[in-house]
Amino acid sequence: MQSDLSAVMVRDAETRIKPLARRTPVFSSTSVNRAAGVAVHLKCENLQRGGAFKIRGASNLILSIPDEDLARGVVAFSSGNHAQAVAIAAKHVGAPATIVMPEDAPRGKLEATRSHGANIITYNRHRESREAIAAQILKDTGATLVPPFDHPLVMAGQGTAALELLEVVPHPDAIIAPIGGGGLLAGCATIAKAFDPNIHIFGAEPERANDTYLSMQAGHRVEIPNPDPIADGLRSPQPGALTFPVLQRHVEKVLLVSEDEIRSTVKLLLARMKLLVEPSGAVAAAAVLQHKLPEGVRSIGVILSGGNLDFEDLITY
Amino acid sequence: MQSDLSAVMVRDAETRIKPLARRTPVFSSTSVNRAAGVAVHLKCENLQRGGAFKIRGASNLILSIPDEDLARGVVAFSSGNHAQAVAIAAKHVGAPATIVMPEDAPRGKLEATRSHGANIITYNRHRESREAIAAQILKDTGATLVPPFDHPLVMAGQGTAALELLEVVPHPDAIIAPIGGGGLLAGCATIAKAFDPNIHIFGAEPERANDTYLSMQAGHRVEIPNPDPIADGLRSPQPGALTFPVLQRHVEKVLLVSEDEIRSTVKLLLARMKLLVEPSGAVAAAAVLQHKLPEGVRSIGVILSGGNLDFEDLITY
Repeated sequence: MQSDLSAVMVRDAETRIKPLARRTPVFSSTSVNRAAGVAVHLKCENLQRGGAFKIRGASNLILSIPDEDLARGVVAFSSGNHAQAVAIAAKHVGAPATIVMPEDAPRGKLEATRSHGANIITYNRHRESREAIAAQILKDTGATLVPPFDHPLVMAGQGTAALELLEVVPHPDAIIAPIGGGGLLAGCATIAKAFDPNIHIFGAEPERANDTYLSMQAGHRVEIPNPDPIADGLRSPQPGALTFPVLQRHVEKVLLVSEDEIRSTVKLLLARMKLLVEPSGAVAAAAVLQHKLPEGVRSIGVILSGGNLDFEDLITY
Repeated sequence: MQSDLSAVMVRDAETRIKPLARRTPVFSSTSVNRAAGVAVHLKCENLQRGGAFKIRGASNLILSIPDEDLARGVVAFSSGNHAQAVAIAAKHVGAPATIVMPEDAPRGKLEATRSHGANIITYNRHRESREAIAAQILKDTGATLVPPFDHPLVMAGQGTAALELLEVVPHPDAIIAPIGGGGLLAGCATIAKAFDPNIHIFGAEPERANDTYLSMQAGHRVEIPNPDPIADGLRSPQPGALTFPVLQRHVEKVLLVSEDEIRSTVKLLLARMKLLVEPSGAVAAAAVLQHKLPEGVRSIGVILSGGNLDFEDLITY
């Protein structure tokens, strides 16, 4: 296995994941452009299989597992969308999947993961270590770990979202994606810079989960205690050991958005675009719509990274 | 002007309306197929310009108005989506638009119509006649009336939704569309039968606005008093004089759905497809998802006809 992320790996991933990932549409709307003051191209990963971009990375790794290892299964820890993605990809290749999920993960994400046939183990986010639980399972079973972000094949898979976007909109001034552990943005930045070195790369984080913002300022990985933004997919307390150097190399700026800005963007995307986007998936769009971009950006590709939002949660907005 | 609807007119409309109407995507999902028990191809007119299929018919008529008549403007009466469509198309050709709308039309639809520069006149649905109000304006101004459904060019324009669907899914067993005044289904049925006479044509109505269902049974147009379904776009009290004969010729069956079935379909499309579809737009999908189709239909093209739903209304579901 290659240890470093490269644009070639993203291109390879695009071919590999075809049986499992959808080529999602890119939408734009004059009313969104007017609100943002910039031409916005929305890559709709909320319409992706499993409801989020995560199937890209998970299937790129799982489809690379040697046949003789598949029967021992795969293991993942995830607050939700990665869990569903691993369950879907594991089912496709016939490997048993065990997923370690926080007990307070959105109900819809828990149910969807179970519906794909995965074995789910829940834990308390504030008292237990999901890494420790996963490590024990790996030791007991000999299964393959599918990390949510910190793996070159996972990052490369996620980068196919930007690759597809650039195949439709070849020369945006910039691209932006939300940052949880940083896998999506690392993959997207790598392929975008290979595509055109002039493309500016931005990341977006909730103010309440600003670990990558702080890490970029500090010049090393910073861990924050129990981040709890409404964007439940971005609760990772620090960027990954493998993702962070990639982000440092390519990302011009991490833009922060408030909880209210995230909520109002979810509502605006629903009202104007008729698209359900979950809070984590709306963070990059929120940064653009709330005019957090530096001057001079006139067109931008925005990853709407997921759409798994319970109706019961939506109606509280 | 031709007085009869034909498949050629639908094909002409497809070319004419290109500057104004979007080619909307066709989506499917294994979870929707499983719930419906049939392969479902969703034509996403909720993602259409103006948020509904109505731009197709309105622009087909308005783009056919002779230049010398444009300055006298256009007039329309509509509960909402047709109003927006006429406002958008009138603005495009530089004609002043006057729209007669019920005072209790959804707020979002009123505001959107106003935002496109139309002059709005409101009336009371239970005490006043929108036709009478519109007739007076036409007399005073010499403007061109853009009827919401009962006009060959409007029906032909709406039919382009099915034409585009059939260009993607050439041989479904059936197609289904909601029925308000019947313009959408008349246009869709006409082109579908020309495309392939074996395609079964179904219509869908709310139980609480079953005027076309009753008319088909009676063999003549039946008017019902003040229909008030949650599907506010389907409140027309009877099918049109021009649409009804077309429906009689082509439609195999009108399927009825309850208010609860409409609401639960709006929620299901949001949860599974991440798409916001308004109640009127979800009626045909509701009929399919609630297993109202006759035996033997294995694949169906479904028109999701609109997506203009206020958040304040959605959260009451």
